[in-house]
Amino acid sequence: MNAKYKKLNKDDAALLLVDHQSGLISLVQDFSPSDFKNNVIALADIGKFFQLPTILTTSFDEGPNGPLVPEILERFPDAPFIHRPGQINAWDNEDFVKAVKATGRRQLIIAGVVTDVCVAFPTLSALEEGYDVFVVTDASGTFNLTTQQSAWNRMSQAGAQLVNWFAVACELQRDWRNDMEGLATLLSNHLPNYRNLMTSYSRLQQARNK
Amino acid sequence: MNAKYKKLNKDDAALLLVDHQSGLISLVQDFSPSDFKNNVIALADIGKFFQLPTILTTSFDEGPNGPLVPEILERFPDAPFIHRPGQINAWDNEDFVKAVKATGRRQLIIAGVVTDVCVAFPTLSALEEGYDVFVVTDASGTFNLTTQQSAWNRMSQAGAQLVNWFAVACELQRDWRNDMEGLATLLSNHLPNYRNLMTSYSRLQQARNK
Amino acid sequence: MNAKYKKLNKDDAALLLVDHQSGLISLVQDFSPSDFKNNVIALADIGKFFQLPTILTTSFDEGPNGPLVPEILERFPDAPFIHRPGQINAWDNEDFVKAVKATGRRQLIIAGVVTDVCVAFPTLSALEEGYDVFVVTDASGTFNLTTQQSAWNRMSQAGAQLVNWFAVACELQRDWRNDMEGLATLLSNHLPNYRNLMTSYSRLQQARNK
Amino acid sequence: MNAKYKKLNKDDAALLLVDHQSGLISLVQDFSPSDFKNNVIALADIGKFFQLPTILTTSFDEGPNGPLVPEILERFPDAPFIHRPGQINAWDNEDFVKAVKATGRRQLIIAGVVTDVCVAFPTLSALEEGYDVFVVTDASGTFNLTTQQSAWNRMSQAGAQLVNWFAVACELQRDWRNDMEGLATLLSNHLPNYRNLMTSYSRLQQARNK
Amino acid sequence: MNAKYKKLNKDDAALLLVDHQSGLISLVQDFSPSDFKNNVIALADIGKFFQLPTILTTSFDEGPNGPLVPEILERFPDAPFIHRPGQINAWDNEDFVKAVKATGRRQLIIAGVVTDVCVAFPTLSALEEGYDVFVVTDASGTFNLTTQQSAWNRMSQAGAQLVNWFAVACELQRDWRNDMEGLATLLSNHLPNYRNLMTSYSRLQQARNK
Amino acid sequence: MNAKYKKLNKDDAALLLVDHQSGLISLVQDFSPSDFKNNVIALADIGKFFQLPTILTTSFDEGPNGPLVPEILERFPDAPFIHRPGQINAWDNEDFVKAVKATGRRQLIIAGVVTDVCVAFPTLSALEEGYDVFVVTDASGTFNLTTQQSAWNRMSQAGAQLVNWFAVACELQRDWRNDMEGLATLLSNHLPNYRNLMTSYSRLQQARNK
Amino acid sequence: MNAKYKKLNKDDAALLLVDHQSGLISLVQDFSPSDFKNNVIALADIGKFFQLPTILTTSFDEGPNGPLVPEILERFPDAPFIHRPGQINAWDNEDFVKAVKATGRRQLIIAGVVTDVCVAFPTLSALEEGYDVFVVTDASGTFNLTTQQSAWNRMSQAGAQLVNWFAVACELQRDWRNDMEGLATLLSNHLPNYRNLMTSYSRLQQARNK
Amino acid sequence: MNAKYKKLNKDDAALLLVDHQSGLISLVQDFSPSDFKNNVIALADIGKFFQLPTILTTSFDEGPNGPLVPEILERFPDAPFIHRPGQINAWDNEDFVKAVKATGRRQLIIAGVVTDVCVAFPTLSALEEGYDVFVVTDASGTFNLTTQQSAWNRMSQAGAQLVNWFAVACELQRDWRNDMEGLATLLSNHLPNYRNLMTSYSRLQQARNK
Repeated sequence: MNAKYKKLNKDDAALLLVDHQSGLISLVQDFSPSDFKNNVIALADIGKFFQLPTILTTSFDEGPNGPLVPEILERFPDAPFIHRPGQINAWDNEDFVKAVKATGRRQLIIAGVVTDVCVAFPTLSALEEGYDVFVVTDASGTFNLTTQQSAWNRMSQAGAQLVNWFAVACELQRDWRNDMEGLATLLSNHLPNYRNLMTSYSRLQQARNK
Repeated sequence: MNAKYKKLNKDDAALLLVDHQSGLISLVQDFSPSDFKNNVIALADIGKFFQLPTILTTSFDEGPNGPLVPEILERFPDAPFIHRPGQINAWDNEDFVKAVKATGRRQLIIAGVVTDVCVAFPTLSALEEGYDVFVVTDASGTFNLTTQQSAWNRMSQAGAQLVNWFAVACELQRDWRNDMEGLATLLSNHLPNYRNLMTSYSRLQQARNK
Repeated sequence: MNAKYKKLNKDDAALLLVDHQSGLISLVQDFSPSDFKNNVIALADIGKFFQLPTILTTSFDEGPNGPLVPEILERFPDAPFIHRPGQINAWDNEDFVKAVKATGRRQLIIAGVVTDVCVAFPTLSALEEGYDVFVVTDASGTFNLTTQQSAWNRMSQAGAQLVNWFAVACELQRDWRNDMEGLATLLSNHLPNYRNLMTSYSRLQQARNK
Repeated sequence: MNAKYKKLNKDDAALLLVDHQSGLISLVQDFSPSDFKNNVIALADIGKFFQLPTILTTSFDEGPNGPLVPEILERFPDAPFIHRPGQINAWDNEDFVKAVKATGRRQLIIAGVVTDVCVAFPTLSALEEGYDVFVVTDASGTFNLTTQQSAWNRMSQAGAQLVNWFAVACELQRDWRNDMEGLATLLSNHLPNYRNLMTSYSRLQQARNK
Repeated sequence: MNAKYKKLNKDDAALLLVDHQSGLISLVQDFSPSDFKNNVIALADIGKFFQLPTILTTSFDEGPNGPLVPEILERFPDAPFIHRPGQINAWDNEDFVKAVKATGRRQLIIAGVVTDVCVAFPTLSALEEGYDVFVVTDASGTFNLTTQQSAWNRMSQAGAQLVNWFAVACELQRDWRNDMEGLATLLSNHLPNYRNLMTSYSRLQQARNK
Repeated sequence: MNAKYKKLNKDDAALLLVDHQSGLISLVQDFSPSDFKNNVIALADIGKFFQLPTILTTSFDEGPNGPLVPEILERFPDAPFIHRPGQINAWDNEDFVKAVKATGRRQLIIAGVVTDVCVAFPTLSALEEGYDVFVVTDASGTFNLTTQQSAWNRMSQAGAQLVNWFAVACELQRDWRNDMEGLATLLSNHLPNYRNLMTSYSRLQQARNK
Repeated sequence: MNAKYKKLNKDDAALLLVDHQSGLISLVQDFSPSDFKNNVIALADIGKFFQLPTILTTSFDEGPNGPLVPEILERFPDAPFIHRPGQINAWDNEDFVKAVKATGRRQLIIAGVVTDVCVAFPTLSALEEGYDVFVVTDASGTFNLTTQQSAWNRMSQAGAQLVNWFAVACELQRDWRNDMEGLATLLSNHLPNYRNLMTSYSRLQQARNK
Repeated sequence: MNAKYKKLNKDDAALLLVDHQSGLISLVQDFSPSDFKNNVIALADIGKFFQLPTILTTSFDEGPNGPLVPEILERFPDAPFIHRPGQINAWDNEDFVKAVKATGRRQLIIAGVVTDVCVAFPTLSALEEGYDVFVVTDASGTFNLTTQQSAWNRMSQAGAQLVNWFAVACELQRDWRNDMEGLATLLSNHLPNYRNLMTSYSRLQQARNK
């Protein structure tokens, strides 16, 4: 018997961005820094584009972990932002869970640093409470591939779906016609080769229209 | 309790080729371009050799995504070819689903670009509707290995079988004696080292027969 | 609920070596040739050391696929050796299945070339019939890592256990005291660094005994 | 239906360190020696920091396998230390199982050398007996990636959770406030880049306080 | 006898950007698209920051090669821009060589797509004419690592210096005090982890100043 | 002092294809089989397109090394074809050297299997006799990367230039206008992503002309 | 004509450690953090063991670059420590060059972060002034392999020798008998597998002496 | 001006095997153990086959470094075997240099463990004294690729030629006809895929002769 397709729905999804802090990100070595930055901002842009309820959280952002990176903060100035006083698992923080529940959403899109802790722990907690969890693998970073693969395995075996930001965008969009220009801009900003396709195409369209 | 062997059957399988378009293929970086081209054409040749009902589909082929690559089109000039006006998931397009249902087949062999979207979405939809889905991993391409692995995991966890084109050919053929020369030609065209074995063998056979 | 430990038992296991033919092995690119040769012979030596009922089979060994490599044949001169006239899946060959059943064993240790076809197909067939199947991943080779990973996934999802030859040897042996010298010789022949440990140790023992 | 979150609990977890012997470690090639040493000692320090009941075991430590590495022994001078006379699977040794049961713990954190045997076998045994097993992937080493991946797959499919030492530390700690300085020291000793964050931070704090 | 240090000098260097066109860039597979885009723009920003005479050139930008990517064009609206009518080696185009000579500079910083042709050919030509050539390896892309390594070797053996954009920036700058904020902004825009260091530092400075 | 640019010249270059035999090619593991086949045929097509004097040679093609692959033979039915009776270094065969000299060319483009012997030996011999030698790295294959890198180093240090087939084609062509369609066809046949650019472009041109 | 062997001599060598600062090290991605830390400290220990004149320098250690890592500082409390006020190339700082000259040594062993700038620039400067320069490749880190390889090439082509810390130690030591225990301790502390050899050996020696 | 071809000559070459000791080999991680063992024995077999004067040497073979591996010793029971009492560089040992000089050979083929010390030091010494040195890269092992590449660079820049064992065998042999069966046996023993070619060929020859 095959599985039911648990499909992302922009009216039932919330975005959780966990501990993308300037200090912690310097620990990430399973992506190149430019790739990782691009992926994280792409995911943030998705949240904004689809107007997903978004929740921010950090751990000890006054200390060596550093503050939330400004690229995220400036995209969600009004989002609930939970500064955890000590809980490692964001789900152990009451305010965080309240904020999640306040969204009324049952699908949680989650990414963070580091994958094996800051992402995996709330993922496992939310799964246990019956949420559908979508872990954005390419916007979540950790120490090395061994650690990455272990964390992916643990979350997947518990029922989380592993997705990349591009799949998230496309699954939320469903149909290009819902906002063709908006999606094109989003992809163009974060997929350089897609932008190249569009650049070539536009040039030829211009030539055609002369 | 072990699983039942869901075995490909040439009388119950259909082939779905999704979005192998000239623009989109330039986004693929999890295979070398020559390997990927070889794999995709090998799969198309399999469809032709076993006379599988085959369905073609593209997304915005007038725009930057580009047209279906000619190597596919020329192999299936009479196949249903659904030009989707906007649906990202081919399964969201009624004509596509109708074409699938019209084949009467319950086993779907699917490949496309990019793996995490154009392949994964219809795979998950078809699984939900009870089809057996065979994802051809080496004829499906995407942005990088992180994306590839996430997509494979999601589809596999939902019940899809991950296969490569060579396994598809062999499972459909069952027995070399069903058409020895036909299969040999197929393999020779797409497995250079198998062709080398045949070249060496033929030479020796010729020598023997002198 | 955790799984029962399906543990290899030398009185209930049979060894199936499928299509390790001189032509087909030249297609293997997911291992270096020396590593692969070492692994295959190590597995054959395990079969001999534990006196496992062993079944050999080849596909078209008169043609370009080439004959079974002599290292295997000379270790099992009296084993049932099924030259398949055309069936790709060894399990589709009645003689092969009869030979398997004649062993009376319920645990099948299987390796072969190529992993995605010659190993995967009989593995899936045997699982369906209720056998416990142990796929020896490092004595089975194929075209590339994409193909390898797809095949591993398919077999694992169907219930096969993925093991390496060293784990097979150790699980069959259970306790070094069952035949310390025999196992040590086996490991020494196929694990160069283990042999090095023994060389250093022996030298020191000799010095001590002077 | 999603899985229950089987969460490490410092009052219900025991640590099993299996065969980290000077000879056997020289067989490990899936980690660089420095990374592996760091990971193993980190895990040992976790055991000490959380005062986990810890059990040590070795196989033939008078012979070429070599003695337990001193870094582990000196951290657990009073731990039960089972010198197995021949059993390959530590769980086949009565004293070992007794020692495990004597802890009264139901969560077993296990690491060792080599992953596919010394870790996998007791893991599968313990799972069968209903324990929750947490395999520490980065403190367990083996011959190569093929062997590593096969072993991870086998254990994961049987119900073990794959974790890395950092995730173990964080899941046991739950909240930084339980012992902020203790955890910080642990991380600082084994995550060079985390130490770097702390070094930079301290310098700036000192400057501030001048 | 050691070599003289041929050091980049902002008063003697010119920047040559060759064929960074939207079509050609889609052929690049020795960098991830995000890394490559970041590197190319970083180099362009260096040209602007140090006010280097900069020359742009493209090959058939009306055809499938596509136009120069807009990120470059908008940074150098007034730079000489040679649209080559057919010469593959930019140095074979008189206007290009005239533009180079018009700068009066003897140090040429060059990057382009693809490395083995569009970069290597003018590099070898310029070396022959006695220029010092600095090939920016990470802002030049090609088909694969074999191609990249061959091209690097050919240029290096002929006397070119292989440098990365960060080394170019630092060698031109000589001393941070020449424009501390300018260089910091440049690095911050293109080295995400350097930006993280600055983010953490600024936060702590702010805290200090409260 | 910089090097003179030793530039390929279609009127001074000859092509030497050494031991691309069906048996020997099965030893190649530093390229995927499809990539290698594509590269070798691309180089042969270059020879034909530029009408380079071409010399074929094989070693023991009646034995296990196998015959020259038919793709090469059919492109050069009239080329001198030296079947060496035993000399490993083609340059030790008088007929081969005579054939080279008969071309009157001073630039030798060479590729073959295996790189470290069949390519390296005649390369070193020809260099010694004052020829300019261009080793086509991606149309020459060998056992593994260690072997490849050693051979590249040895040849490069002796004065050979390392080039890839695409660079050879472009350096011989000099200017697209010499035969735009011919070069485009050559590239289109062997660079799948370049073909994709052309496919997209043609489609848009057609649309424009409607 | 072969090269003279420029051999490290403990009476003619000085050690330069450049910019191993807590912030800058977090930019290093061409080594795992544990490997890099181990290599850097090993090199520092070499400096101490052979009592090499050692010079420390940092760049802006009050700012985001962070202070020199304490492991280095505590090993050389009395070494000249040049806090550069802005010069990127340490050799542009008069105090640094004076300190180098004050050692009277003509062989410079250099390592630092990042390789392409903080190591390469003073290396090229020192070579120009006639020093023999030994770049310690594994104690110098940078952004990625492209950057690393470019920097190695540039320095090597200018006459620097690329060495690893182990080679440095052995070349300075010349003969184990100069201080057997000292060297053994050094190696044991930084080569975990060498320590394992010693652990096994000691155990056997102890057993022998009983 | 191109280089003279310094070609191996079996009447002018000697083989130096340095420190292939059971303990030291366990430090090698730049080859898989099976590949490395195969390469080392292949080189030893070459020495025997071509009756090259061969010199063995070890460092502290009574201690943790361990004895020379028996596979080498048994092939050269009568070779000069220098047990160095402490010199790290074999060339610093008078007996070793005397033994080299006693051969009267000017070409030195050298391999050993570890590459960066035990191979590099005598290589650099011998080059300085005017010998032609051939470093067998695949029969020399070290800690990791960084170390390997540094050592290769240093030796190559000083004038050593980097070769692999297969190239050594072929260059010494010159012509298959000098001893066809002997060379075939050598290759068959150490190149599994070459052996496969021969197995397939023999089978077909047998069939032909029936």
